Amino acid sequence: MPLIRSWLDSANAADCPFPLNNLPCGVFSLDETEPRCGVAIGDVILDVSALEADGLLELDGGPYLDVPFWNELMAAGPAIWADLRDRMTELLAEGSEWREQVVPYLVAQDGAVLHLPFLIAEYTDFYAGRHHAFNVGTMFRGAENALPPNWLHIPIGYNGRASSVVVSGTEVRRPWGQIKGPDDAAPRFAPSARFDIELELGAVVGTASDPGYPVTVAEADQMIFGYVLLNDWSARDIQAWEYQPLGPFQAKATATTISPWIVMRAALEPFRTSTPDREKPLLPYLQEPRPMLYDIALEVGLIPQGGAETILSRTNYAEMYYSAPQQLAHHTTSGCAMNTGDLLGSGTISGPTKDSRGSLLELSWGGKEPIAIDGGTRSFIEDNDTLILRGAARGDGYQIGFGDCAGKVIPALADPYKRR
Amino acid sequence: MPLIRSWLDSANAADCPFPLNNLPCGVFSLDETEPRCGVAIGDVILDVSALEADGLLELDGGPYLDVPFWNELMAAGPAIWADLRDRMTELLAEGSEWREQVVPYLVAQDGAVLHLPFLIAEYTDFYAGRHHAFNVGTMFRGAENALPPNWLHIPIGYNGRASSVVVSGTEVRRPWGQIKGPDDAAPRFAPSARFDIELELGAVVGTASDPGYPVTVAEADQMIFGYVLLNDWSARDIQAWEYQPLGPFQAKATATTISPWIVMRAALEPFRTSTPDREKPLLPYLQEPRPMLYDIALEVGLIPQGGAETILSRTNYAEMYYSAPQQLAHHTTSGCAMNTGDLLGSGTISGPTKDSRGSLLELSWGGKEPIAIDGGTRSFIEDNDTLILRGAARGDGYQIGFGDCAGKVIPALADPYKRR
Repeated sequence: MPLIRSWLDSANAADCPFPLNNLPCGVFSLDETEPRCGVAIGDVILDVSALEADGLLELDGGPYLDVPFWNELMAAGPAIWADLRDRMTELLAEGSEWREQVVPYLVAQDGAVLHLPFLIAEYTDFYAGRHHAFNVGTMFRGAENALPPNWLHIPIGYNGRASSVVVSGTEVRRPWGQIKGPDDAAPRFAPSARFDIELELGAVVGTASDPGYPVTVAEADQMIFGYVLLNDWSARDIQAWEYQPLGPFQAKATATTISPWIVMRAALEPFRTSTPDREKPLLPYLQEPRPMLYDIALEVGLIPQGGAETILSRTNYAEMYYSAPQQLAHHTTSGCAMNTGDLLGSGTISGPTKDSRGSLLELSWGGKEPIAIDGGTRSFIEDNDTLILRGAARGDGYQIGFGDCAGKVIPALADPYKRR
Repeated sequence: MPLIRSWLDSANAADCPFPLNNLPCGVFSLDETEPRCGVAIGDVILDVSALEADGLLELDGGPYLDVPFWNELMAAGPAIWADLRDRMTELLAEGSEWREQVVPYLVAQDGAVLHLPFLIAEYTDFYAGRHHAFNVGTMFRGAENALPPNWLHIPIGYNGRASSVVVSGTEVRRPWGQIKGPDDAAPRFAPSARFDIELELGAVVGTASDPGYPVTVAEADQMIFGYVLLNDWSARDIQAWEYQPLGPFQAKATATTISPWIVMRAALEPFRTSTPDREKPLLPYLQEPRPMLYDIALEVGLIPQGGAETILSRTNYAEMYYSAPQQLAHHTTSGCAMNTGDLLGSGTISGPTKDSRGSLLELSWGGKEPIAIDGGTRSFIEDNDTLILRGAARGDGYQIGFGDCAGKVIPALADPYKRR
């Protein structure tokens, strides 16, 4: 599919993350206005809440956008999602008769504050990248036990903490936690010294499943409204001590940063690609009827305070062993109800080479091989480092961007129990 | 504290679970009415939503009860909770001048349908019973590795699935899942053959914590609105295969049943008791400034289809090694925000003896020692068995009851992917 040209010149540039092919969904505010729903196009935002209120966007069963989150539209299902895209395209395409009426609803992205685009219902994080699982397993349990016996059969996941999810740009405070090194006699309560990122893609559930009924992989695909970049901040020292036998808990609960724009599944259709060959056959309920991954180039940048950015890693979402529809289908096997606004982290997306790893834990091999950055080296995150995830699916003369997923790590509280 | 006598005779009986000392919070409906908030007293329910709407219950900052859940009142904090109790006591106490005005707001418990009393924000389940952890650890990992090294230092917990929480009386369908026995060559997708209960108490978070700031154990205690009985239904065969390395997932996501009445913390004050002596000293952030457990007698009953009930187990909440305030304080160490409506499962409450174990896994020792019930034996739950948890704190001539926490297990779907 080629670029769909818009009468907005900024949307037609080959390096623009938000061409008319994209139309990602966010929530924004200006100094004088309350948060509302917007769609990014070129270098501006189309105020779709106002468009709908004024009768220029009519969707069956609406209004959906009279709230500062996308959940009501997400719950409406794929036919309404398609109607929204059709109408946006009609309004914004080159030669549109609506141009003059639409102009008053455009605001500059510069100066707009972006908020969480949807209310997070529940958050689940997976562990579905083959290279990441092998790397981390090797460090935590040794190479011979790296990949657990179930890993090639189940998209392994755990429930995370929805209250930890924040939007890109939110500062992340280094957490305190209970820590015990392998040679320590007893645990202590201290700020994490091994604070890390995990480069992930997040799948956003649009339509709910019926409680008690599993869904197929094909049905799961249709339930997904879109995708965001996701940074699953992880305190490795807390994690190593707490995670046996019931999994990560406080190590992953400080913050989970997502990019501000939900890229709708429809925008990614031209970039579908298959999961890799199965090393062991999957049970029928996990088999994919068609390609369920996407070719999305990803990178991680680190900017130290007052320094220049270093790109730490470049990888691709196509490196995943399990797709989001497989994860979502597995999530319902027990009859577990999935709801509008559920967020599913893909698991860390590491490639096969050292420069394509999706966490500092892997990049520095547990701190043993510090990596070079502007003005120094890093094993884990230092105070005042800013970490940025970026992603783009690159088409013929255009790209589908996500917007930065960024967070600056600020120093731990001096005394976490001192009251404000 | 003695019984507070009511002009409602049924509330003064020594075996009544809902005397004036209790005043638990629920949501009920009648054939002709929508769900609304009610307080149980004797054998009736006081329609507090209607009382508030009609001006007979005025709380600062209200209305709180014009919604079919208690979250708004829970968020209002301990002073408002106390005001509610004071006013209920004024209305219902023996000799009350309000008696005639209150009578029209009473409805019989018989015939009322009870609903979830609050909107579950997020659900966390702990593993904080010493006997349970040792028993299960022995079965899963052998006696020498039974208690993980962190267990005596951390109230181990994992995030559960809030969408799984249902109210007592809801039928629970036996789940399908991915299962692989130790001698199987490969996993298969099948109905769970080792479906189980876990006898727990659930703590209901009333007031939220500040994102980024841990709370002390004393502050955590004040945040807790009340307690419910909680059955953490568990598919042991699914759990055994999936839980390494990131913890239980689908094994625990079919259903989590809670009792219909939230017993407010204030009602349990006379029953405070201490956690047992520490086997290893706790870090200061986990130390308790006063007794934080409660003396609550608990039991589990099983009723087979067409048969009589057998009491499988009798134990006490005082058997826990960690209290709910300790768990909640630990939950915030990373800066994790806790919100109104968060539900914290205590972990399975097993006592030291065989007849005080809180799960069939322990009672039948993994199926090796089936237990006798009316007309047969049980290793795990059979189809059409009804499991009932009961609890009561017993005072001087009265008791604080929770109401049954019951669920009937119905057969698995024949084909979980056949559409309705």
